[in-house]
Amino acid sequence: MAAPPGSGLAGTNGTVDKGVDFANYFCTYAFLYHQKEMLSDRVRMDAYYDAIFKNKQHFAGKVVLDVGTGSGILAIWSAQAGARKVYAVEATKMAQHAKALVQANDVQDVVEVIEGSMEEINLPEKVDVIISEWMGYFLLRESMFDSVICARDRWLKPTGVLYPSHARMWMAPVRSGLGDQKMTDFEAAMTDWYNFVVDTENNYGVNMNVLTKSYREEHEKYYLKTSLWNNIHPSQIIGTSAVIKEIDCLTATVDDIRNVTAKFSLPIHVDRSRLSAFAGWFDVQFRGSMENPAENEIELTTAPSIENSTHWGQQVFLVHPPLRVNEGDEVIVDLSMSRSKDNHRLMDVNITYELQLSSGKHLKPTSTKYFIE
Amino acid sequence: MAAPPGSGLAGTNGTVDKGVDFANYFCTYAFLYHQKEMLSDRVRMDAYYDAIFKNKQHFAGKVVLDVGTGSGILAIWSAQAGARKVYAVEATKMAQHAKALVQANDVQDVVEVIEGSMEEINLPEKVDVIISEWMGYFLLRESMFDSVICARDRWLKPTGVLYPSHARMWMAPVRSGLGDQKMTDFEAAMTDWYNFVVDTENNYGVNMNVLTKSYREEHEKYYLKTSLWNNIHPSQIIGTSAVIKEIDCLTATVDDIRNVTAKFSLPIHVDRSRLSAFAGWFDVQFRGSMENPAENEIELTTAPSIENSTHWGQQVFLVHPPLRVNEGDEVIVDLSMSRSKDNHRLMDVNITYELQLSSGKHLKPTSTKYFIE
Repeated sequence: MAAPPGSGLAGTNGTVDKGVDFANYFCTYAFLYHQKEMLSDRVRMDAYYDAIFKNKQHFAGKVVLDVGTGSGILAIWSAQAGARKVYAVEATKMAQHAKALVQANDVQDVVEVIEGSMEEINLPEKVDVIISEWMGYFLLRESMFDSVICARDRWLKPTGVLYPSHARMWMAPVRSGLGDQKMTDFEAAMTDWYNFVVDTENNYGVNMNVLTKSYREEHEKYYLKTSLWNNIHPSQIIGTSAVIKEIDCLTATVDDIRNVTAKFSLPIHVDRSRLSAFAGWFDVQFRGSMENPAENEIELTTAPSIENSTHWGQQVFLVHPPLRVNEGDEVIVDLSMSRSKDNHRLMDVNITYELQLSSGKHLKPTSTKYFIE
Repeated sequence: MAAPPGSGLAGTNGTVDKGVDFANYFCTYAFLYHQKEMLSDRVRMDAYYDAIFKNKQHFAGKVVLDVGTGSGILAIWSAQAGARKVYAVEATKMAQHAKALVQANDVQDVVEVIEGSMEEINLPEKVDVIISEWMGYFLLRESMFDSVICARDRWLKPTGVLYPSHARMWMAPVRSGLGDQKMTDFEAAMTDWYNFVVDTENNYGVNMNVLTKSYREEHEKYYLKTSLWNNIHPSQIIGTSAVIKEIDCLTATVDDIRNVTAKFSLPIHVDRSRLSAFAGWFDVQFRGSMENPAENEIELTTAPSIENSTHWGQQVFLVHPPLRVNEGDEVIVDLSMSRSKDNHRLMDVNITYELQLSSGKHLKPTSTKYFIE
């Protein structure tokens, strides 16, 4: 799911003020416009549809919990696949629309919509299946999986399964025109600032130059260090993609995902190219559990694709200046992602990259702090 | 000042959760980008500059309070105009930049920057002048004048003056292409929705039609009923503008501005035209007080202008369908503006308009609820 950024206040000791969390995060999901955007994502819809209807044995006669039901679509499908009972939990007023949709599709005897947060509501029983579409940009933006973990630990039977069951984060070296574009925009903003400083001194007798450093930092962050949403074309990938994180949804803890660290190598396979950015994306699998596997394993991938792009796109981390690379070179990457202090749903990403030439020579490593906003 | 919308939670009995208010409202002002936008508004800057430097007798040797100092510009000017002491209060981290700017412009012996909200901080003394740039779109969006009233009631000496001293809200009948544009966008959104309903039923077995009414309402609000920022060209005004609210900043109470009601007439002076919208804007005056008037009265107007447009633009309330009007016709308007229940910084505006033809015949009145977001 894509939600807009917010700058809020995180409480101490991990507590988040509910009102602030609503103002920053939840509120977008109360809009039908936003739900429709996700419901119109054919790749997303097909994956969940197939995951459910090609694995009816996990649903027929079973009790299901849909975490963050939104419009109610997954809950309705679960009922149509034969579930005995579906609890559809939604924190925003979208729950009212979900109720209407459930009624209009005649599954009100099976689906119970509950308006409230997963952390606070109570269910009358444990469940066989927890289904949820919780993934944000680069998988973990929005930190919604925390709510799925909470639901799992409170409500999933020991034999229960999660839909999806597994998730992976990926990264690849790419070439892209975005970097040049953003650099141009950044330089234009600074030129405009310098003119502004001159004008303000001349016209109004106040020297603003002491703010230049902060203005530059603010705009560097905005133009160059904030990851960009983009639909990368597969031809832009100039090397081998790497899995940088694997999650077993049945056993992962919040500590496992609070900080993501990965060391990996990205071999370049295009000659005389430019590494302009790192692209990040995710995939999820619907495999059931070891004891209770899915009949038909389904995968939802958000990898760069010509025909199967999704509303998630990829997250692009710009490399300034771009690196000249050749076939046989390798980019050694050390990545460390953690939650923003101001807003636990946004991320700080430290990426250190080092170019190892095909000759074996290592260039000096570069470290950059990026922001997923 | 222009700040982005937010959807938040208002407490009962007028209390607003601070964290929510920060997430919804204050946070934009912490960005230098936003401060620069306001500092680059030549009409705004010229008006405040002239108001201060052409009325030095109000500042020289006096104690000044700048409410919402932002970058500190008004505080610095007040010091340069000879103030003995300036308290510059700013709720966001922008206060740190204001401190640096004060130091860099060598007025740190006079200007004391205080980071905090006007409602909470304490000053060591009462003040002779309260200066503030508090005006939002259509004057009252953002409800920042509440903080100026608070400052005035707590800290202004009985002989003190406010800069600005007076404010007015205006409205005019305009022709505009925006209405057709937004109607086209709205109709496209609804066509897209109907296709989506068909596709979702065919591909995924779920009928979304029960949501059509709500989807339509959400999009009507978004495209047709939310006031638009626009720079109206004076040639678009097709009748006489009217003052719909007048405020004496020295005596106004929050109750005076919490609800704005006005009945007024807009005579049309262009023949064979279309009333496509009502445009709203404001002006403020720097007149000092009756006992202590300004030597030079200055006015800051945001009226439609060819050369003197401001970052406030005007607020445009679309009329659907447009009214055919002729010279001599009159539009009788009944306006009622109140604060949004969900966010006291945003407004609900009820406008009832009735066309009185030059023949004397009255057409049926139309009422529309608009939103200033």
